[in-house]
Amino acid sequence: MSVSFVEVPKGSDFPLQNLPYGVFSTQSNPGKRLCVAIGNNVLDLSGVAHLYPAKVQDALKSSTLNLLMNLGHDAWHVVRTRTHELLLKNSELEHDAALVRKVIIPQKEVEMHLPADIGDYTDFYSSIHHATNVGIMFRGKENALMPNWRHIPVGYHGRASSVVVSGTPIRRPLGQTLPVEGQPPVFGACKLLDFELEMAFFVGGPGNKLGERVPVEEAWKNVFGFTLMNDWSARDIQKWEYIPLGPFTAKNLGTTISPWIIPVEALEPFTVNNFAQDPQVLPYLKHDKPFNFDINLLVSLKPERGEETLICKSNYKYLYWTAMQQIAHHTVTGCNIRSGDLMASGTISGETEDSFGSMLELSWRGTKPVQINGNLTRKFIEDGDEIIIRGYCERNGLRIGFGECRGKVLPAIPFKK
Amino acid sequence: MSVSFVEVPKGSDFPLQNLPYGVFSTQSNPGKRLCVAIGNNVLDLSGVAHLYPAKVQDALKSSTLNLLMNLGHDAWHVVRTRTHELLLKNSELEHDAALVRKVIIPQKEVEMHLPADIGDYTDFYSSIHHATNVGIMFRGKENALMPNWRHIPVGYHGRASSVVVSGTPIRRPLGQTLPVEGQPPVFGACKLLDFELEMAFFVGGPGNKLGERVPVEEAWKNVFGFTLMNDWSARDIQKWEYIPLGPFTAKNLGTTISPWIIPVEALEPFTVNNFAQDPQVLPYLKHDKPFNFDINLLVSLKPERGEETLICKSNYKYLYWTAMQQIAHHTVTGCNIRSGDLMASGTISGETEDSFGSMLELSWRGTKPVQINGNLTRKFIEDGDEIIIRGYCERNGLRIGFGECRGKVLPAIPFKK
Repeated sequence: MSVSFVEVPKGSDFPLQNLPYGVFSTQSNPGKRLCVAIGNNVLDLSGVAHLYPAKVQDALKSSTLNLLMNLGHDAWHVVRTRTHELLLKNSELEHDAALVRKVIIPQKEVEMHLPADIGDYTDFYSSIHHATNVGIMFRGKENALMPNWRHIPVGYHGRASSVVVSGTPIRRPLGQTLPVEGQPPVFGACKLLDFELEMAFFVGGPGNKLGERVPVEEAWKNVFGFTLMNDWSARDIQKWEYIPLGPFTAKNLGTTISPWIIPVEALEPFTVNNFAQDPQVLPYLKHDKPFNFDINLLVSLKPERGEETLICKSNYKYLYWTAMQQIAHHTVTGCNIRSGDLMASGTISGETEDSFGSMLELSWRGTKPVQINGNLTRKFIEDGDEIIIRGYCERNGLRIGFGECRGKVLPAIPFKK
Repeated sequence: MSVSFVEVPKGSDFPLQNLPYGVFSTQSNPGKRLCVAIGNNVLDLSGVAHLYPAKVQDALKSSTLNLLMNLGHDAWHVVRTRTHELLLKNSELEHDAALVRKVIIPQKEVEMHLPADIGDYTDFYSSIHHATNVGIMFRGKENALMPNWRHIPVGYHGRASSVVVSGTPIRRPLGQTLPVEGQPPVFGACKLLDFELEMAFFVGGPGNKLGERVPVEEAWKNVFGFTLMNDWSARDIQKWEYIPLGPFTAKNLGTTISPWIIPVEALEPFTVNNFAQDPQVLPYLKHDKPFNFDINLLVSLKPERGEETLICKSNYKYLYWTAMQQIAHHTVTGCNIRSGDLMASGTISGETEDSFGSMLELSWRGTKPVQINGNLTRKFIEDGDEIIIRGYCERNGLRIGFGECRGKVLPAIPFKK
């Protein structure tokens, strides 16, 4: 395996084969710049842009990834190949010690930001185990999956403004709930705050005009790369508000993503078969290309004073619908997608109880408290708890990691009108 | 009533008391610029920005209204007052004939654009008559209104990318529907294409940070101004997809807004009492300030070859929930709002059959065809039909108009995978 002149510690998320993109700043230079992660460092792409082909230089000197996303698949390959070349042992970059001192920066000295201006954020509902679990809890085993679920990659529009980068604290929301059926609703702090283990991809490439579709076989060209996501959810608020137009204030309180976008090319060695779909999907959703990935996903909960406990082990490969199908369906009526759009998977649960991707499922609606280190238990998330999502692919000694998606819950602000 | 040196024809939507904002370009200067409408002309604000206080000049020279929206209520008042002064008879502007020739441009020579970069678009469901009508059709008279409807200004996140300006053609969508319960779904052109008569406001002003709320009494400061909206809807697609997460591809095929944003100050003379709410709403939604407006709304349908027919007469004042309540609820769990966000009312129907704001209601689900000029009828919208929404306030000889929100339906693109 090829090796970088920048040290990559054993077990690092960020070997030379990963090269995920992010946006960072430093204390001495608060301007936002693009970078890739390499070991415990970042490579400042703005500082080496002049070493890339002319057509991508502007994109590399931008303060968000939107321009690079917009250049499309061929340009992504050019940038990735060149970055790999520059970071190799004995590269021209390594030999320019002054430049290396400028552009290789320890990760502990950088602040990471949202990687792109997110035009629109969409959340799908693509895990059959999650949809089934929720269905059993709310409608019983017989009617667990809605009739449309195996025909449509069900999704809904989310709130772009409230997507934040890992590390941003999340305030326990106030809101309206209906504690007792038939009684008036009440106002107060959310009592059933939850995480949702998700992954999301950023849209790039050609996109489509309003009124046109992205054909399913072409849709992979619009996937720039993947991040981890925690779709914070206020279950008690959601239950009262969501009929008939879907979740609204229960979800727009904040959505956390990890700062690193892993390019699809880095995930290709971990491609697995698409989830077997039964019944057959309609032709506009059918594709042959495998576009599913073996990505291990881990969720830990860390109480205010205490060590973290691993509470969920899941995998991206459990998703029933592929990102290509999600895009084809999203655009089927002519909705235009744009570089920088964010599309999330929905909660990713596996079949076994330890792979459920939310407290709702892990504690089975609060009926089975989850054991936490230090003799604590949790039904839902408490103030001061931090949720940490991690992800990685591993095979033949190659590890491609996603970094972390962290968020700590702050107590609600008392209500004053 | 004060009079402009620019001619305002009798019955014009745009007297000196209106001064709605828009973004325009001309053939000779394709750069997007801000303007206000006056009679049959526009005033190019970029060309007179130097005549305004220094603190607003950058905003007036921008290519979208986002900067001006962001300056807040006091700045809006300063700009409006100064524009009024400049357009008065005998103003310093009138006396600078060379400048007038440059900055007063006939509307027929300009192309109008989306007035702002829309960060997020939200659609509410705030007309009790509409919600009741839809409820009766789908659930019967007994359960017409959902239990949450009188407690929550129900809303959902829409798709910002597919909001387009008046005049943009709308393509009949392809999509997935379930023509026969219990049979497999089918794919094809939407058969039940509909309009929805709505109004929308643009957010401006201070907004809020993620995790904070906008108190209901303060929420008016975040309303920059109002436009007309047509929320195109594919009813057959919507019916099959919307459970449990709400409308998705049935709505993101396109949403049309009128190009002019009418400032709230121009609407103040037409303020009426807020809709009486029963039961009382929770304290976080209670406000004393009247924030309801008597705005006449008209919808016409113009077939491909034929004259237009007025098919609906409604009014903004029929809305149960105010824009202030919509904002307070939208932010209740801490969702941050930003200047340029668009928030729509939902379909505005009145009590009488001629005031229903969609074909679904006007034709009562296709059971009562709507009569159109030339012995035509319509149950839903056909290819080549143009929907034209107009709005105006009128009182004591003062007319404040909204211009037009037009969109013509093009035939579906045949499906090739």
